[in-house]
Amino acid sequence: MKTDRKAIADLAGALLADVAGAQPLVQSITNYVSMDLAANALLAIGASPVMVRAPEESAELAPALGALVINIGTLTKSSADQMEAAATAARMHARPWLLDPVGAGALSMRDATVMRLLRHRPAIIRGNASEIIAVARILGLTVDTAAPRGVDSTSTSGDAESSAIKLAHHCQCAVVATGAADVVTDGQTTIRINNGSTMMTRVTALGCSLSSVMGAFLAVARTPFEAAIAATIVYAIAGEIAAEKSEGPASFRTAFLDMLHGLRASDIQTRLRLV
Amino acid sequence: MKTDRKAIADLAGALLADVAGAQPLVQSITNYVSMDLAANALLAIGASPVMVRAPEESAELAPALGALVINIGTLTKSSADQMEAAATAARMHARPWLLDPVGAGALSMRDATVMRLLRHRPAIIRGNASEIIAVARILGLTVDTAAPRGVDSTSTSGDAESSAIKLAHHCQCAVVATGAADVVTDGQTTIRINNGSTMMTRVTALGCSLSSVMGAFLAVARTPFEAAIAATIVYAIAGEIAAEKSEGPASFRTAFLDMLHGLRASDIQTRLRLV
Amino acid sequence: MKTDRKAIADLAGALLADVAGAQPLVQSITNYVSMDLAANALLAIGASPVMVRAPEESAELAPALGALVINIGTLTKSSADQMEAAATAARMHARPWLLDPVGAGALSMRDATVMRLLRHRPAIIRGNASEIIAVARILGLTVDTAAPRGVDSTSTSGDAESSAIKLAHHCQCAVVATGAADVVTDGQTTIRINNGSTMMTRVTALGCSLSSVMGAFLAVARTPFEAAIAATIVYAIAGEIAAEKSEGPASFRTAFLDMLHGLRASDIQTRLRLV
Repeated sequence: MKTDRKAIADLAGALLADVAGAQPLVQSITNYVSMDLAANALLAIGASPVMVRAPEESAELAPALGALVINIGTLTKSSADQMEAAATAARMHARPWLLDPVGAGALSMRDATVMRLLRHRPAIIRGNASEIIAVARILGLTVDTAAPRGVDSTSTSGDAESSAIKLAHHCQCAVVATGAADVVTDGQTTIRINNGSTMMTRVTALGCSLSSVMGAFLAVARTPFEAAIAATIVYAIAGEIAAEKSEGPASFRTAFLDMLHGLRASDIQTRLRLV
Repeated sequence: MKTDRKAIADLAGALLADVAGAQPLVQSITNYVSMDLAANALLAIGASPVMVRAPEESAELAPALGALVINIGTLTKSSADQMEAAATAARMHARPWLLDPVGAGALSMRDATVMRLLRHRPAIIRGNASEIIAVARILGLTVDTAAPRGVDSTSTSGDAESSAIKLAHHCQCAVVATGAADVVTDGQTTIRINNGSTMMTRVTALGCSLSSVMGAFLAVARTPFEAAIAATIVYAIAGEIAAEKSEGPASFRTAFLDMLHGLRASDIQTRLRLV
Repeated sequence: MKTDRKAIADLAGALLADVAGAQPLVQSITNYVSMDLAANALLAIGASPVMVRAPEESAELAPALGALVINIGTLTKSSADQMEAAATAARMHARPWLLDPVGAGALSMRDATVMRLLRHRPAIIRGNASEIIAVARILGLTVDTAAPRGVDSTSTSGDAESSAIKLAHHCQCAVVATGAADVVTDGQTTIRINNGSTMMTRVTALGCSLSSVMGAFLAVARTPFEAAIAATIVYAIAGEIAAEKSEGPASFRTAFLDMLHGLRASDIQTRLRLV
């Protein structure tokens, strides 16, 4: 895989077109706060969202899925069971799935759920820097001890890079740690994306919705790593353009979804900044 | 009932004013994705939304209701029980109710729930074309075998028309199959409405919210059929105007709710297109 | 505490800055309709929302909280247990909490839940006029008998003033009854705020989200009464400015969140109207 700026931008633009062409069915088991935004973000890029949670429905839906996304926000014991049932069904039908470990490291039920879900081999793990650091620590891959507070990140994605690489290597998956710069790695190759806007931290569930959007790319890409790179880039550049057009967090959210819908490959070529 | 264009437009405009005047209390048991949009759409037309789900609260609320709306999205075993309790309470107090069979035909638990709820005699059944075709098939009224995928429609409303008529006749209710053109029937008379915008398929839960809005019309109309016609027209024309003012799916959603709030009878007279 | 207009405006502006500086962690157990708006409103003022509900997570989170907000909308038996667990944990760790008694007086399960939660000593009770009147009646403090309908207020905040004062005195907390004018009292002193816009009644969950925002002020203020005054003022003035910039309820919602994010102390000084 070529990792120069132009090749990466081409990849992102091509996969964005592939999502709109294939309209993949993406099941998102996500927290109650982000369901609306996640479904609208998927529709904006041309994918087909389905928010089914009941175990019997997940099993029935799995053969038709492009990908599954599991986000452990607003977790309960019963929703953890729903998540595991969906992951099991996806794996049985060889559908790729993504884990978003919201709040890992901050709350012990999250840590236990992450451990339980990791056994089902996600293709991608995506979190903020604090969460990626925490997941690596839970698995005993690092000895970092800074615990996050709540569900918002208290670490930078630079801090998270070595954790992300170890995690990718250990779990044999792609790992994304989002932040001021976004780190995407498959354990061998690491890409750092320097687009986006601080306004993206002022809208709830924007990270969660990136996970859902990444599920659509996972459904059409050759590898999880390529899906992770392309989705992260598309999201960050849509956010960057939207921030230039908005007056606050709510008009930003509107402009951002409009831009996800209208983003062109040429926007990506012009704006992509790798570090 | 007169079915010429002018008479139908007059009906829709008059009922829109009646909703704003009566401010009917509309209980919506709807999926988690659409609750925000459904409640805001009801407020936009001047109705009073209440999202109560607990069986004991549904029973207590029923006497005060204008109408009840049940949408089976994000279904679980426990939510199916909540829906049946609410339908039972509405029927006991002679309140009209509407069934939105989200995902019927795609998932077997949905089919079973539809069968269970139909025993409580909805006044209106509203779904996309695939769902209406599926409900007719589940009841053995047709032998159509094309199964939908996920919760988005894969059939056109033209395909659904004969299913809608059979369903309306069989269940003695009004049936609405929304799509590029919207079909509304009571089994005897069928109206086809050719307004709206493709942008309406790029916003999550917009169909679900039409069901909630239709509940408000059901509370004030003389017949379920008139409520179904008027709500479908108001919704489609608000969408058509909003699409002309917006740059993508999120600005469309904003303009659409604003337009539901500001729609005038003259907009309906000018724009209504029957097929 | 000084209660002249200038002193009150200074207080609101200072606490608004304190929230942005301290970024308090605010746990909101709120209904499914308002979670998105509540979280976005908290982010807009610079606070850090966390929507955790599971009892084990509430217990673990409590030491890190700035404040807890409990809103009893879309109540079920199981969510009432979650609420009581969170209130217990907050109290054990001496964290202040706010009760929003949505639907009190209209539904008996709400009344029972309010009674149960009041034992855990909220620092603030915030509701619309009907709800505050109902809570006072449930406690036997008044003999008012007008029962509200649904969850929207049918009383004015003027009607609620004597109930609010009795309630504040009885529960030794601050009480806010929002309406055309907002009443804020600690049982001794009562402030009436005459800002806002009727558009605020056309957006779902706007009152619920004020409760969440008030939680952020509760985390930084010297007293619950000062938090209640400042949050009510900030919210009403942001709404008043947003209404001047918008064309309907959805563009109002966008402008309102933008304005919560961008509100300046000088806007408060210029616009505050006490009655």
